Amino acid sequence: MKPIGTIHSPFKYGDAMPVQSIEGRDIEGYIKLLPEYVDGLKDLDGFSHIILLFHIHLNKKVKMQTRPFMDNIYRGIFATRSPSRPNHIGMSVVRLNRVEGNRIYIKDLDIVDGTPLLDIKPYLKVIDEGDKVKLGWFEKHNKREMGWHD
Amino acid sequence: MKPIGTIHSPFKYGDAMPVQSIEGRDIEGYIKLLPEYVDGLKDLDGFSHIILLFHIHLNKKVKMQTRPFMDNIYRGIFATRSPSRPNHIGMSVVRLNRVEGNRIYIKDLDIVDGTPLLDIKPYLKVIDEGDKVKLGWFEKHNKREMGWHD
Repeated sequence: MKPIGTIHSPFKYGDAMPVQSIEGRDIEGYIKLLPEYVDGLKDLDGFSHIILLFHIHLNKKVKMQTRPFMDNIYRGIFATRSPSRPNHIGMSVVRLNRVEGNRIYIKDLDIVDGTPLLDIKPYLKVIDEGDKVKLGWFEKHNKREMGWHD
Repeated sequence: MKPIGTIHSPFKYGDAMPVQSIEGRDIEGYIKLLPEYVDGLKDLDGFSHIILLFHIHLNKKVKMQTRPFMDNIYRGIFATRSPSRPNHIGMSVVRLNRVEGNRIYIKDLDIVDGTPLLDIKPYLKVIDEGDKVKLGWFEKHNKREMGWHD
């Protein structure tokens, strides 16, 4: 695994961060892709939303359970988006504004400035229309992802 | 990065593989999680869909552009789900059947048997209801992900 670029955002390390892109709504930033990968961006601009996989580089902790804010129950790490996961891979769906050379302008960011980018994938609707989606413990929180006590 | 478990599916290496979970509809398999991560599964069973991040371990190639089947135009790798990406991280949304100890039974698989698992995340609806989602070159293909010529 090696970074393919860097994510730039208004959130500096230590700032209060929005958690998940619903809270980062309209926050703008950009990706600076390493020049050797620019050819891979062809046709990306037709997509309204893209998935970013990135290295959660500021978090070295690994926990099996965590307490989300506004929730006092410990949840299994795999039932949350907490950063303290065994492999520190983060995932965000962001809106794509435009691509200019090796810069990809994006919106709805919840990612800290300087985060190493690992992959970009087009957002495709993969859930069958008829499927009922259940959100587990998260359902009562009004689709709003939260931070973590510990 | 190290595997947290292994994905088991009916697709052996070299078989015709479904591409993306829409084509893998109803295909069943399971994850065998390493025992040290079982505590992280608490509350996962409330979710109907989970996101798997895995190592695309059978593909060592990296390409910047690729031609999807049924499409003769080269597309940028980041505008596709092709496995030949700079970091070989695959992503699938699958339906969760049940959790039994360190086994997670799943449905809608498009993943080859023996694939090393890197992460499990709960599937949350992150796109705002009002957002219009544009699928770029992929739109005309009826939401069906495809394989790759090369």
